[in-house]
Amino acid sequence: MRPIIDTDTAGDDCFSLLLALRDPAVKLEAITICNGNVQFEQQVENALYTVEVAGRGGTVPVHPGCPRPMLRKPLDAAYVFGRDGMSDANFHRAQQRPDDRHAIDAIVDRVMANPGEITILAQAPLTNIAAAYVKEPRIAENLRHLWIMGGTDNALGNVTSAAEFNFYVDPEAAKIVLNAGFRTSVVTWTATVRDAVLSPADLSEIEAMDTPLSRFFTQVNRASVEFSMKTGRLAGSVQPDSVTCACMLDESLVLESADCVIDVEVAGELTRGYSSVSHATLPDQAEADPELGQARGANARVVKRIDTAGYRAMLMKALAS
Amino acid sequence: MRPIIDTDTAGDDCFSLLLALRDPAVKLEAITICNGNVQFEQQVENALYTVEVAGRGGTVPVHPGCPRPMLRKPLDAAYVFGRDGMSDANFHRAQQRPDDRHAIDAIVDRVMANPGEITILAQAPLTNIAAAYVKEPRIAENLRHLWIMGGTDNALGNVTSAAEFNFYVDPEAAKIVLNAGFRTSVVTWTATVRDAVLSPADLSEIEAMDTPLSRFFTQVNRASVEFSMKTGRLAGSVQPDSVTCACMLDESLVLESADCVIDVEVAGELTRGYSSVSHATLPDQAEADPELGQARGANARVVKRIDTAGYRAMLMKALAS
Amino acid sequence: MRPIIDTDTAGDDCFSLLLALRDPAVKLEAITICNGNVQFEQQVENALYTVEVAGRGGTVPVHPGCPRPMLRKPLDAAYVFGRDGMSDANFHRAQQRPDDRHAIDAIVDRVMANPGEITILAQAPLTNIAAAYVKEPRIAENLRHLWIMGGTDNALGNVTSAAEFNFYVDPEAAKIVLNAGFRTSVVTWTATVRDAVLSPADLSEIEAMDTPLSRFFTQVNRASVEFSMKTGRLAGSVQPDSVTCACMLDESLVLESADCVIDVEVAGELTRGYSSVSHATLPDQAEADPELGQARGANARVVKRIDTAGYRAMLMKALAS
Amino acid sequence: MRPIIDTDTAGDDCFSLLLALRDPAVKLEAITICNGNVQFEQQVENALYTVEVAGRGGTVPVHPGCPRPMLRKPLDAAYVFGRDGMSDANFHRAQQRPDDRHAIDAIVDRVMANPGEITILAQAPLTNIAAAYVKEPRIAENLRHLWIMGGTDNALGNVTSAAEFNFYVDPEAAKIVLNAGFRTSVVTWTATVRDAVLSPADLSEIEAMDTPLSRFFTQVNRASVEFSMKTGRLAGSVQPDSVTCACMLDESLVLESADCVIDVEVAGELTRGYSSVSHATLPDQAEADPELGQARGANARVVKRIDTAGYRAMLMKALAS
Ligand SMILES: [Ca+2]
Ligand SMILES: [Ca+2]
Ligand SMILES: [Ca+2]
Ligand SMILES: [Ca+2]
Repeated sequence: MRPIIDTDTAGDDCFSLLLALRDPAVKLEAITICNGNVQFEQQVENALYTVEVAGRGGTVPVHPGCPRPMLRKPLDAAYVFGRDGMSDANFHRAQQRPDDRHAIDAIVDRVMANPGEITILAQAPLTNIAAAYVKEPRIAENLRHLWIMGGTDNALGNVTSAAEFNFYVDPEAAKIVLNAGFRTSVVTWTATVRDAVLSPADLSEIEAMDTPLSRFFTQVNRASVEFSMKTGRLAGSVQPDSVTCACMLDESLVLESADCVIDVEVAGELTRGYSSVSHATLPDQAEADPELGQARGANARVVKRIDTAGYRAMLMKALAS
Repeated sequence: MRPIIDTDTAGDDCFSLLLALRDPAVKLEAITICNGNVQFEQQVENALYTVEVAGRGGTVPVHPGCPRPMLRKPLDAAYVFGRDGMSDANFHRAQQRPDDRHAIDAIVDRVMANPGEITILAQAPLTNIAAAYVKEPRIAENLRHLWIMGGTDNALGNVTSAAEFNFYVDPEAAKIVLNAGFRTSVVTWTATVRDAVLSPADLSEIEAMDTPLSRFFTQVNRASVEFSMKTGRLAGSVQPDSVTCACMLDESLVLESADCVIDVEVAGELTRGYSSVSHATLPDQAEADPELGQARGANARVVKRIDTAGYRAMLMKALAS
Repeated sequence: MRPIIDTDTAGDDCFSLLLALRDPAVKLEAITICNGNVQFEQQVENALYTVEVAGRGGTVPVHPGCPRPMLRKPLDAAYVFGRDGMSDANFHRAQQRPDDRHAIDAIVDRVMANPGEITILAQAPLTNIAAAYVKEPRIAENLRHLWIMGGTDNALGNVTSAAEFNFYVDPEAAKIVLNAGFRTSVVTWTATVRDAVLSPADLSEIEAMDTPLSRFFTQVNRASVEFSMKTGRLAGSVQPDSVTCACMLDESLVLESADCVIDVEVAGELTRGYSSVSHATLPDQAEADPELGQARGANARVVKRIDTAGYRAMLMKALAS
Repeated sequence: MRPIIDTDTAGDDCFSLLLALRDPAVKLEAITICNGNVQFEQQVENALYTVEVAGRGGTVPVHPGCPRPMLRKPLDAAYVFGRDGMSDANFHRAQQRPDDRHAIDAIVDRVMANPGEITILAQAPLTNIAAAYVKEPRIAENLRHLWIMGGTDNALGNVTSAAEFNFYVDPEAAKIVLNAGFRTSVVTWTATVRDAVLSPADLSEIEAMDTPLSRFFTQVNRASVEFSMKTGRLAGSVQPDSVTCACMLDESLVLESADCVIDVEVAGELTRGYSSVSHATLPDQAEADPELGQARGANARVVKRIDTAGYRAMLMKALAS
């Protein structure tokens, strides 16, 4: 497997990177950085530091990408992850420095040079992927597969009631990407908040490992756990990015999925970044409202259920090493 | 209790009427008819027939209201309820004829003449209620309470992924009503599809009663049960309108509710009629996106959990009589 | 001619009323008041006072209508017309009092009782007309003709760049009315700001008349003239409402018009209340953008050029009497 | 002057290129091709051929850019310019071949390497410029000046009533670019259709020159002249792109301009690509509608009046050579 991971490195973005970096079967082609969770340059540093912590310093290029969304004002989630995205750990600067090549070019060039070979895991707002497609639409047919962490599955969001962070921050990019014709799998916030939550006991177990990676995990994870508790969202730690990576690395973790029509709202007053996901129990679209016309064909596989235990085991193993 | 029921009489609209008509503690002030489920005049007849079946012919006026939504093209759900809204029962014409007074005036006049006394149960698209408010905004403060069956609770709709029928058909009306300042309780499609489903066993039990009202129920309910089965939505019969009436008649059936900010999308491309419902686990709105500003105060109580057994018992009792 | 004038009485709304009130060939059926220029009750008083000034006190009923727009927050133009809409004249209260019947009912009942006989001049936001149509859609076919002062003709607005006041204040109402199927003529802000401007010389001539009506005109007109000068809009006084009335009373004043598709934007971020008017020089719609489909048929006559001198003469004559 | 011209080469795009190519004071840095008027590869060929016809073959690189708009479906104007964009001239293939470097990179690299030196003339949909900005936002401050041919000045469009072609085809790109912070001048369709029309006499005069460039002009211009006549738009030939180039080359041709707030509608149902241009005669924004808040500062100079004779002379001189 030859993935590129596009990330707004903060919190569980790092553990997603770790899973890929520590898996010997994976040739991580590149890490590309997109605007999102925290200040852009900090995200670059977070990625470089994570590569170093994983013992892979200097082996995987880190390409800075688009520092802001396509059309909307920049927006971050420092309120979740701490100012540095690492629960204010103030890690030292990694030795590896960012690659000169822009994320867009890193993506376009690798995909076009290796038709059918490269997989992308997009775990950030989709600005980089959309901009790469706008530059070179043929990446859609030349990419092996696109894994997206983003959106909701007709359920509560995590920024507004209607929308999940990655789609909310750059809804135009999300809409571009989902309509571009990539072979796509989507892991929604809805699925992860149910199937990818580490319990307080899990977190204690990780802490008790006391390996370098478990210490890294515990440190980086602290702020988002506190945020979840403060908002009463859940007791424990939700891991959307790392679980998406886990599914990519081992598709058997996807216990249930459905081929769906998924699209993103860019015009609403209350629904910026809302993801509409088609559902089998809905009435025939053209019968329910003739103005909608016939439904179009599915454009993505939406992950409906994930093997929580299997994911947990994969993460534990990576942190224990 | 002095309710007005605003209804697009078809399927379980009828059983909602029955609950109110058969409850001796209720003085049903009026039935007002709104565009919605099936052809408008047919809905008027369905209401008149239901009053007759309940043994109340001539005692409750039926006022035809707005025959089409405010801004959008008319839309029905004959694909659910049969062409006549009664599973194509072709009932005879009731003796009672519709009242000359328009639903809007029936609502405005009664509410303004009885400040703080009248309750409205709105179990149809909200055209009539919105139009009454546009005509006389002071009904908002003079109505005792407004019960609305409509919308979703950040969950899958029943017309599109994003929207429930009543809000989808006339989203502008729904938005007007929810922002008008009524004391409001909302029973969403989300709550009813979970807590107000009659099982096949329930339906058999009703059929076995073999009373005039149980036979009426079984006949009228047939088409929507078949529709639910065909779409794989659920085995059994979902009863959004009658459960909302039940909650109004006996508030102890509301096991859980939350004061929320609820609003309706009228501008989206994919999200016509979507209802956004605020949620405690979301981040502070102004922190998550400064452009959204401070969240405004709650404008409705959203019913979160309903006493299914209690509802079922109330319905059974009414049909058995 | 049997017109109803729907008005947000302030500034030149009054002179429109005067033209109709003073024309012996006109049986002014009713005046209906809509939210708009200034505080609602004040507008009612302004209409009553204008009837009195015209020497018609007690002969034409004045019906208060909808005190706020359908969906949007109330908005006024006191910055143009003074707080009382009469350049802060503080006129005495007229003897005639408002009619008890709501404007919506006055419109619906008169139109339905006199099929093909009644004309409406709508010179305010279109809330009343839209609400009347929502209540009774058959007024569309039973009204003789609907004259609308509102919108722009693909040109600069007067509230925002995109929109004229009447359409901006209640865009949903404007959209409802224009798509309702009335026989409609539209006099746009664009036409009036070019063809219905009284020059400073005209204003001096009116002042010099020194009749009761000319004094009324000069007093009421003062604030809006000052506003036009302050904004550099034009030297003189633009008279959108009275020129629309003039065109209704004498259609020969319409020198040029075109049957157009006109519609109103309700979903834009910058274009609330924008009026799109079809134009002969545009490319075939389905060729320019296949997604737009075939253009639909014209729904209104848009007035393109007005006989300025003829209008001026009609106004002068009315004020001189 | 060191301009880059971004063009969807068809019709008068070519004459704009000619003006720059034939001006000895101009070092045309690059030509970049954007989706728009006709099939993308054809536009590349049209640019290469125009360079050759100008006697500059091999001296100016032509960089293909984004072959489709950011978010919307591709759309062309072959109905105006003929299938090949050259009035179906079927010119031979130029010797010069397109540059390998993508337009986005040609723009970003040149601008960043020459801070304050490069000017861009954007005479196509703004996909390339927007994508360059999304990739490297610092081009906004490092570009000397951006000239845009696009939008309307609160007036009739040329695709729909509301919108001009370049903004209509990629409204999101137009919105991104106008809000990016470039030093910007905009020449609207409104200004060009009034001030940049060549009369039939002008066209005859050009034809009578009988130089290679005048013959090229006459051939390429034929289809759009026929289109203008067919739609009754005007007798003659409107030259939006070449007049914008003329203004860039000789700013004294701009007789009147205004610093404005200009923005683009991306959310409307009728107003896709509409350009809102602020105007001095409008009321204070916060007074007219408090929800709009204070107006923001001007973001572009909008050209209001052009020296038609001066433009004509510049074009004639170039074609005569
Ligand atoms: Ca992430
Ligand atoms: Ca109903
Ligand atoms: Ca008015
Ligand atoms: Ca062009």
